[in-house]
Amino acid sequence: MDRPTHPAPSDASAAEGPGDRLGPRVGRRGFLTAGLTGAGVVAGAVAGGGVAYAVTSDGQADPADETVPFYGDHQAGIVTPQQNSLVFAAFDATDTATAESLQVTLARWAAAASLLTVGKPIGPVETRAGAPPADTGEAFDLGVYRLTVTVGFGASMFDDRFGLKGKLPAALQPLGQLAVDTSIDPSISGGDLCVQACAEDPQVAFHAVRNLARIGRGTVAIRWLQQGFGRASATSTSQVTPRNLMGFKDGTDNIKAEDPGVADAQVWVGDETDQSWMTGGSYLVTRKIRMHLEAWDSDDISDQERIFARHKDSGAPLSGGTEFTKLDFHKRGDTGATAIDRRSHVRLAHPDNNGGAQILRRGYNYTDGMDNRTGTLAAGLFFMAYQKNAHTQFARIQNSLAEDGLNEYITPISSSLFAVPPGLNQIGDWYGKEMFGYPG
Amino acid sequence: MDRPTHPAPSDASAAEGPGDRLGPRVGRRGFLTAGLTGAGVVAGAVAGGGVAYAVTSDGQADPADETVPFYGDHQAGIVTPQQNSLVFAAFDATDTATAESLQVTLARWAAAASLLTVGKPIGPVETRAGAPPADTGEAFDLGVYRLTVTVGFGASMFDDRFGLKGKLPAALQPLGQLAVDTSIDPSISGGDLCVQACAEDPQVAFHAVRNLARIGRGTVAIRWLQQGFGRASATSTSQVTPRNLMGFKDGTDNIKAEDPGVADAQVWVGDETDQSWMTGGSYLVTRKIRMHLEAWDSDDISDQERIFARHKDSGAPLSGGTEFTKLDFHKRGDTGATAIDRRSHVRLAHPDNNGGAQILRRGYNYTDGMDNRTGTLAAGLFFMAYQKNAHTQFARIQNSLAEDGLNEYITPISSSLFAVPPGLNQIGDWYGKEMFGYPG
Repeated sequence: MDRPTHPAPSDASAAEGPGDRLGPRVGRRGFLTAGLTGAGVVAGAVAGGGVAYAVTSDGQADPADETVPFYGDHQAGIVTPQQNSLVFAAFDATDTATAESLQVTLARWAAAASLLTVGKPIGPVETRAGAPPADTGEAFDLGVYRLTVTVGFGASMFDDRFGLKGKLPAALQPLGQLAVDTSIDPSISGGDLCVQACAEDPQVAFHAVRNLARIGRGTVAIRWLQQGFGRASATSTSQVTPRNLMGFKDGTDNIKAEDPGVADAQVWVGDETDQSWMTGGSYLVTRKIRMHLEAWDSDDISDQERIFARHKDSGAPLSGGTEFTKLDFHKRGDTGATAIDRRSHVRLAHPDNNGGAQILRRGYNYTDGMDNRTGTLAAGLFFMAYQKNAHTQFARIQNSLAEDGLNEYITPISSSLFAVPPGLNQIGDWYGKEMFGYPG
Repeated sequence: MDRPTHPAPSDASAAEGPGDRLGPRVGRRGFLTAGLTGAGVVAGAVAGGGVAYAVTSDGQADPADETVPFYGDHQAGIVTPQQNSLVFAAFDATDTATAESLQVTLARWAAAASLLTVGKPIGPVETRAGAPPADTGEAFDLGVYRLTVTVGFGASMFDDRFGLKGKLPAALQPLGQLAVDTSIDPSISGGDLCVQACAEDPQVAFHAVRNLARIGRGTVAIRWLQQGFGRASATSTSQVTPRNLMGFKDGTDNIKAEDPGVADAQVWVGDETDQSWMTGGSYLVTRKIRMHLEAWDSDDISDQERIFARHKDSGAPLSGGTEFTKLDFHKRGDTGATAIDRRSHVRLAHPDNNGGAQILRRGYNYTDGMDNRTGTLAAGLFFMAYQKNAHTQFARIQNSLAEDGLNEYITPISSSLFAVPPGLNQIGDWYGKEMFGYPG
């Protein structure tokens, strides 16, 4: 992916007090000035939060000091090599939110994200007496840990509250009830906005979402929040394929950042969109998929491998070869049956079975502790996938999976679709700027 | 802490099928033989799970390859420098559990822990057709990440079910309702047994607890489970003091592993015990402490610092100096009041205010997502503390904290006490062996 040269992140604080009136109509310089005269400049206030890369003597970068560029044509956190920790929050606008207060929040989120993603607090931790600290402080002397912050909008934003009725992209229409969706919990699905924070350290990711929530207080409130760990897909060829909680390698055939042709074809919204504000953006599907681990753990290895059509240890397809060998759906075993079962997960989900559709998976494992109602572990996969159009990509693939043998062992309990707008190009931009009617 | 030389961990599988009859009366060699002829030897089956330390060219050990010794006078995971991730589970014995089946489980747990803590699976992931995999596999090609597994017993184990009535230590009697305990939820408190898994990788910790739960199926079942991140205390002078979710450094004055005199005086059970099976063990208090983060974040910096009596950025006491400067409770400021408030958390919890009592804190931050009942973040501190006697140490300090200004911002929602027996000395030992009447 080509990234043009972009301005350095601002040192301005994003955590202005509720008293200031920094609206989105304030220009770039005005924004900066307001920031500088508000909670103050934070440069130099961070111990250990490095802006530059630190490279150890064996040439390996220390993840604590590694940054992912914030500005760019696309938002970071999509094709960025997947980090180990996730905190994801969906927000709803409050009853008192207006188009203007939403844009103020989205502008402050952008400013805050530009600071957090270089390892800076959003303002002083130690502030003047009588005022709450600008930054909540729990990441104060941690590094930046490749933090990315990714912001999106749900279809509900486009009702008649914020003057956005004509801006709803066709691709953001709800996916409706998919074949396997019999247990979706609305309280952990949907939302007007979403924030995905990924980092190599969970406290850094938590800190980002918490401070964005704090900035938005009065305008947006968290609807649901999910922590994830142990990434469940590789989004770069530089990454070893990780394992989901079923113990299988997950994402061997995932789209990789190193193939910009595939990303352009499958991930980034292009000229085909009916809403130009989404050009360069992507659509995010999130699904909380509860795994019935106790049942899975009792299933024999042959059945487990039949379902995934891969060997559990190596990830090699049952049709032969090693992990990255192309699947051979026609190869037959001694019994005459195909080595790869017709109902196997990999066959049903494969592009060959779905008109070439692919998705960029970016899932995380999760555990919510015990489910006392059933006496089983509340754990599984927080599935996330980015794509150009979730109706023709995710939903098509998901409907192919209706007869997947895996369905016996999993239950989707949440389902959401968000429009993730393109990246921000300069200081003073805000998420959804063009959507709200300002030049992009 | 001195550790004698101990045997290398066994290569025997700990994940025997339900059909085998490996009782605790089987001697060391018998145990090994049973393992070798059961699910098989696992040596060499691990990709990437290093047994030895890997040292990078700049002399830093890679945490993926770092191991913490399993065998020793004390269990690992207590004075071990605190790792970044926690998965903690409390278990209850099932209705069909017997003293014997419990000991089989505890022996298998010991064998499994000896393998997991050197980065090995507990048995083959790829097993014979028709049998479930011995190891669940999600940590298969991850490293060991300084994994420790620590096992304890709750007071409920010592009722009339397992012949342990005479073995209840006085120090394991329930702590009763402490001054601030008005919201304790019994469903996430207590339990017959507990397993604490700590590692530098959350998936490695999760994998350990999940596989121990699987080994125990039919005999013990998880009662509650808590995941924690971003350790909230330093247990070694080699560690930077971490921060809790209130943004303050937590554990500046914590007991450190490098001071064995303090550990002997405050952490390890000695000759004073009425139950010799606990000599060399320790008592663990766990408390899930919900923080009212939204209220805290609105509190001004002066009040926050008054409560903790430390500067938020540096951790230096308000009586002056730097983070590790001794607190001066008598020093007065310009107004004539003491610089350290009398009701401050650090003063009330200080040994000088509690007859010299100290505890080894080993807490983790947590988030459970949103609390939809109150529209606030379900997050806070999963407090853990080890000590010689929780009645004279934790409970004494906690009762001193009844007037702590911090109480306005926190609510304990779980409380548990576990007896953590001493370490295992050799292959074939099991947790609680002496407690069950066998020579230690």
